[in-house]
Amino acid sequence: MAQQQQQQQKPPRTYNVGILGATGTVGQRFIQLLENHPFFNVTALGASPRSAGKPYAVAAARSWKQNTAIPQNVAAAIVQTCEPANFAGCDLVFSGLDSDVAGEIETAFMKADYAVFSNAKNHRMDPIVPLVVPLVNSSHLDVVHHQRKVHRLQSGFIVTNANCATTGLVVPLKALQDAFGPLSRVAVTTMQAISGAGYPGVPSLDILGNVVPYISGEEDKLETECAKILGSVRDDGTGFANPAELRVSASCYRVPVIDGHTESVMVEFANRPPPSIEQVEAALKAYVSDAQTIGVNSAPEQSIVVMTESDRPQPRLDIWVGRGNAVAVGRLRKCNVLDIKFSLLSHNTILGAAGSSIMNAEIAVAKNLIK
Amino acid sequence: MAQQQQQQQKPPRTYNVGILGATGTVGQRFIQLLENHPFFNVTALGASPRSAGKPYAVAAARSWKQNTAIPQNVAAAIVQTCEPANFAGCDLVFSGLDSDVAGEIETAFMKADYAVFSNAKNHRMDPIVPLVVPLVNSSHLDVVHHQRKVHRLQSGFIVTNANCATTGLVVPLKALQDAFGPLSRVAVTTMQAISGAGYPGVPSLDILGNVVPYISGEEDKLETECAKILGSVRDDGTGFANPAELRVSASCYRVPVIDGHTESVMVEFANRPPPSIEQVEAALKAYVSDAQTIGVNSAPEQSIVVMTESDRPQPRLDIWVGRGNAVAVGRLRKCNVLDIKFSLLSHNTILGAAGSSIMNAEIAVAKNLIK
Amino acid sequence: MAQQQQQQQKPPRTYNVGILGATGTVGQRFIQLLENHPFFNVTALGASPRSAGKPYAVAAARSWKQNTAIPQNVAAAIVQTCEPANFAGCDLVFSGLDSDVAGEIETAFMKADYAVFSNAKNHRMDPIVPLVVPLVNSSHLDVVHHQRKVHRLQSGFIVTNANCATTGLVVPLKALQDAFGPLSRVAVTTMQAISGAGYPGVPSLDILGNVVPYISGEEDKLETECAKILGSVRDDGTGFANPAELRVSASCYRVPVIDGHTESVMVEFANRPPPSIEQVEAALKAYVSDAQTIGVNSAPEQSIVVMTESDRPQPRLDIWVGRGNAVAVGRLRKCNVLDIKFSLLSHNTILGAAGSSIMNAEIAVAKNLIK
Amino acid sequence: MAQQQQQQQKPPRTYNVGILGATGTVGQRFIQLLENHPFFNVTALGASPRSAGKPYAVAAARSWKQNTAIPQNVAAAIVQTCEPANFAGCDLVFSGLDSDVAGEIETAFMKADYAVFSNAKNHRMDPIVPLVVPLVNSSHLDVVHHQRKVHRLQSGFIVTNANCATTGLVVPLKALQDAFGPLSRVAVTTMQAISGAGYPGVPSLDILGNVVPYISGEEDKLETECAKILGSVRDDGTGFANPAELRVSASCYRVPVIDGHTESVMVEFANRPPPSIEQVEAALKAYVSDAQTIGVNSAPEQSIVVMTESDRPQPRLDIWVGRGNAVAVGRLRKCNVLDIKFSLLSHNTILGAAGSSIMNAEIAVAKNLIK
Repeated sequence: MAQQQQQQQKPPRTYNVGILGATGTVGQRFIQLLENHPFFNVTALGASPRSAGKPYAVAAARSWKQNTAIPQNVAAAIVQTCEPANFAGCDLVFSGLDSDVAGEIETAFMKADYAVFSNAKNHRMDPIVPLVVPLVNSSHLDVVHHQRKVHRLQSGFIVTNANCATTGLVVPLKALQDAFGPLSRVAVTTMQAISGAGYPGVPSLDILGNVVPYISGEEDKLETECAKILGSVRDDGTGFANPAELRVSASCYRVPVIDGHTESVMVEFANRPPPSIEQVEAALKAYVSDAQTIGVNSAPEQSIVVMTESDRPQPRLDIWVGRGNAVAVGRLRKCNVLDIKFSLLSHNTILGAAGSSIMNAEIAVAKNLIK
Repeated sequence: MAQQQQQQQKPPRTYNVGILGATGTVGQRFIQLLENHPFFNVTALGASPRSAGKPYAVAAARSWKQNTAIPQNVAAAIVQTCEPANFAGCDLVFSGLDSDVAGEIETAFMKADYAVFSNAKNHRMDPIVPLVVPLVNSSHLDVVHHQRKVHRLQSGFIVTNANCATTGLVVPLKALQDAFGPLSRVAVTTMQAISGAGYPGVPSLDILGNVVPYISGEEDKLETECAKILGSVRDDGTGFANPAELRVSASCYRVPVIDGHTESVMVEFANRPPPSIEQVEAALKAYVSDAQTIGVNSAPEQSIVVMTESDRPQPRLDIWVGRGNAVAVGRLRKCNVLDIKFSLLSHNTILGAAGSSIMNAEIAVAKNLIK
Repeated sequence: MAQQQQQQQKPPRTYNVGILGATGTVGQRFIQLLENHPFFNVTALGASPRSAGKPYAVAAARSWKQNTAIPQNVAAAIVQTCEPANFAGCDLVFSGLDSDVAGEIETAFMKADYAVFSNAKNHRMDPIVPLVVPLVNSSHLDVVHHQRKVHRLQSGFIVTNANCATTGLVVPLKALQDAFGPLSRVAVTTMQAISGAGYPGVPSLDILGNVVPYISGEEDKLETECAKILGSVRDDGTGFANPAELRVSASCYRVPVIDGHTESVMVEFANRPPPSIEQVEAALKAYVSDAQTIGVNSAPEQSIVVMTESDRPQPRLDIWVGRGNAVAVGRLRKCNVLDIKFSLLSHNTILGAAGSSIMNAEIAVAKNLIK
Repeated sequence: MAQQQQQQQKPPRTYNVGILGATGTVGQRFIQLLENHPFFNVTALGASPRSAGKPYAVAAARSWKQNTAIPQNVAAAIVQTCEPANFAGCDLVFSGLDSDVAGEIETAFMKADYAVFSNAKNHRMDPIVPLVVPLVNSSHLDVVHHQRKVHRLQSGFIVTNANCATTGLVVPLKALQDAFGPLSRVAVTTMQAISGAGYPGVPSLDILGNVVPYISGEEDKLETECAKILGSVRDDGTGFANPAELRVSASCYRVPVIDGHTESVMVEFANRPPPSIEQVEAALKAYVSDAQTIGVNSAPEQSIVVMTESDRPQPRLDIWVGRGNAVAVGRLRKCNVLDIKFSLLSHNTILGAAGSSIMNAEIAVAKNLIK
């Protein structure tokens, strides 16, 4: 079942969507990925006051760094400032805002009763905000009912997706947790693409022919977000419970790759004896994510693509598995220090950013959370 | 003491040295590093029959990939085949041979009573061959006496240096073991430069803007060589004893960097409680290697350069610490999974290859092992 | 008219096609581009004896370097040696063979009465072989009638496409020649992508962070092929006449780019005064190629995409104009030495290789040259 | 004579030098190159008010991008604002200032009677300011006498060096002009390194695996500066006369190279018939620059290094010819469009920036222009 292309049952209506931070790197991906979406129509674009009032093609002229052209309808649209009043008529908004402004703006939109799907870090660890990787924990979306209650809203809420490196990692971790019980220790070294830093982002003198052993704030995000995502919704629906035993250690590196985060992962299982490599491989291959089960439009056919060639996955060859919305896992083998180790790859600006937000919104539509 | 530039007391005589595999990538580094050596004179060059009979500048015309010119005296020297008879007059030979031929040729030279300092992997795990990283375990050189006895030789022996990624790793591990007792677990993810694969080596289509999660044989070398190097010489001088508890797990990646292997390292100490980060930092800074103590010519002033900037060490900026013969360590911090973690960098074709061989030979001179 | 997507009138039947050199870099592009072709079905795959007898997925396991998977029907097909007897049932063959074997094999297929569309250099300058860039000189295909007569064939012939750097260059040159009469002098400096050298191709140590001022044979190809392509068919249909005055000077460089050849071009017109920059820009924009007029399936909507941003075209952003089958031209301006100068970009393995061959075959179908 | 290392006769005294723009990319090179200079002592460092008052090691902590450490004496020096009063005691100042501030600041220092050696573009085309490439036109320095007269100064003046791409180009052009008379037309396509844009400079998303066909203002600099440098001093010493016939056309590209500008050059001679390739090669090899003749400290042994290998010069291998202060020329051959063509390479931040300024100052010392 997981093998065949899902076609989300087209909902009875279409949805007008706004994009906050539309001229930024993530905003551009939203626009590109939504160009031919069957039921999300981009009708409002928000950016900084500097861009406001200009047609998008003018405002983004120097910053558009996709290798496809700006969609024609978006090119002519006039950019607005990121104020709720400018987004009347939108059924939901996607936020690709920078974290220095995302916190307040997203809160304002939520309080103005908009459904906000955010890629920013600001609200991720809020105890009543779902932090959702659509291939992992769509059940967390149910907490939006409680969130609305707290804020006394009809239709507004904030749902965030995870940090780009976290996103790729938690997909196989969830498959392992589902199959073999709790994980006790996870150690990961990431080799992250430059597109993760936005534009202008990383100066070329820092990364051409080089490796930088540091990405500000990234290790902490990986170590804390994993636990929330792999946790469960509390029985009363008011928040989330982390896995009891999980400890994560992350070391984050920047490498001269355009798109695609590679992660070297070691895992220890709480239950002894641990599963064999064959069992682990079978579990990863058998994994069917919520996004697949629900059958949303952008879900990959297979959430985890297990590669058995000795030297895969590689960013240049494998970031397009599942049209950028799946995770490639390879080099699965025993570990002398923890139980198993493997290498994974995910597309950091699709699954790791805009793609996850869009799937989260598609799931929310399927769950009737968009009013 | 470690802070000031050592000047090896010049030995009473000079030594004629031969280079096996002289046209290869490692052979080129031997030639470059020995250009102005105070007591090693390159007098014989060995390569494949295809190159033999030609002046070195002709034989290496297309393969010389250093950014300095071929030294003039070497340029005119006639390349020989790698047979002991062609190296008469040499007091010792350095081998930069490829592993497909290094085993037999090095054995032939050893049996012809030459002192062989090899960079090849073939003899590294031989129980009577010292596997020596000059900043770590020069005491292992003492086993050459036993090796000579076994092979009934006057002056011949084989000493190898370690794999390039192993070499950088064992230096801080030795400092930690000296200061805090045995290590129980070490996990390392390497990000290795393309020069480690020789020439033509890695095709550009495989590595430009890419990361390859595999280097053939490399993980096994790291996992086995570390234990031998960090072990001790048996009391009777007939071989080596590995540390009892050490388990090493390695994951090796190729990245688009010319020179300089970066390693993401996690360490667990056998003794509890483990040392604090401050204690670890102090121990790394205080470490004085054998090469420094003996004061050999090519020893770095400081074997481990501890960097406290948040984003260092980086290959582009830091491979030249200790003129390529030291190890840079940075990002020292606590680890949620093992005890501590850090990032290290070493120059893979200097300290990680030719530079270590040369320091090993300098130490052998100081120890009167060259006859 | 040129602005709208052409849809080649689907021919009354489908064609079985074979691919020679199917495991190589160009062969892979043929397979990838033909995956969903409306009337060309890949039914035979030829490669070296080493690959013959194996399923394609096995034979190409290590060399497949595309970022899409091997099409499923091709993956299972058994690779054959490149002998005409193995291609019975094919209506035409595409050749991505290396030039060291392409000459003889292609001749053998032609003499066995196959229509051969070759990407190799061997027959390009043959006086009765059309050298066709589908966006430029499809009329040259008419010489296949004469070629068949000479070789006494019913359906066989050889048609070649041009060198990858030549292909990008001649498209705007043809537009200028059509609009303003003969060109007298063209000077071009190319900055060529590594994929042009095949696999393993350029060693990474030669090109990472580097520029190589030489590509073997390339400058000569550019200087000679341009004249043949921009020439005309002789009135009696027996061959080609070069433009009388054209002199081309090429300087070819390799740069660390995966796909996309950039060319810095200067042009002098034979007629004085030369056209203004505005006239040149208008002529480039107005250019409609044969492939568009005939309306073949793979033709781009616009053959020359003129960019007016100051810093375009760039390989990373612009190689997909016309789905890889168009040429991007930018920085059009006056030249102090010749008349005008501009920068162009084309996808060297699509328009510059497999894409041109496929369009040539589509045109041949439209012209009823395939029997 | 040109073949042997020159040793500038040490002047009778040493000179205190200040560096304006000391924290920038060019300023860093000044500091690095002057670390062990025999008679220039860095005694004052100027930067923006944001850096002023801090030790250099603190002010430059994040921006120092050299692969050698900050010299110890400089590290501790307190950075000043760029006001003449802060540079009392300096015999001369080097300016690595950005062009947005260089014009006014350099004028202020000149008017305060400092000898200013500037790398900025602002004063280059001033009719009484010498624009000097030390390997080409040191005679232009004589115009400082007139400049002083105009500004009524005792010791102050401004001398600039040229744009980095201009500098590499004019050295072989001068050799050709000296040997064969005036040049009529020069066409050049440059492939320029990212270090030329300073730090942060070029965003990595713009240049990794890419080529950018534009560098703001660069083509105009090449086209105008060449003529001034290749011109002569007017007989009355009050300015410069451009060559009568020279026309230069430049096309400038950015490529993913750290250091080293490559240039594809075509040249036409005014005199007919033009020299043969052999004559041109001999003239380039025989060229002895003023810097060599005067024998200044930093002059290369050979100003033009002619390479005869088919694929040289390359940035990765050849930027260190003449310790970064020479020009490498290769691929010398006939041109179908102009007379000859060749490829050249120069180190853009040494010969192309700080190195030229330092040689200019050394020549000024030798000419007794520093008071």
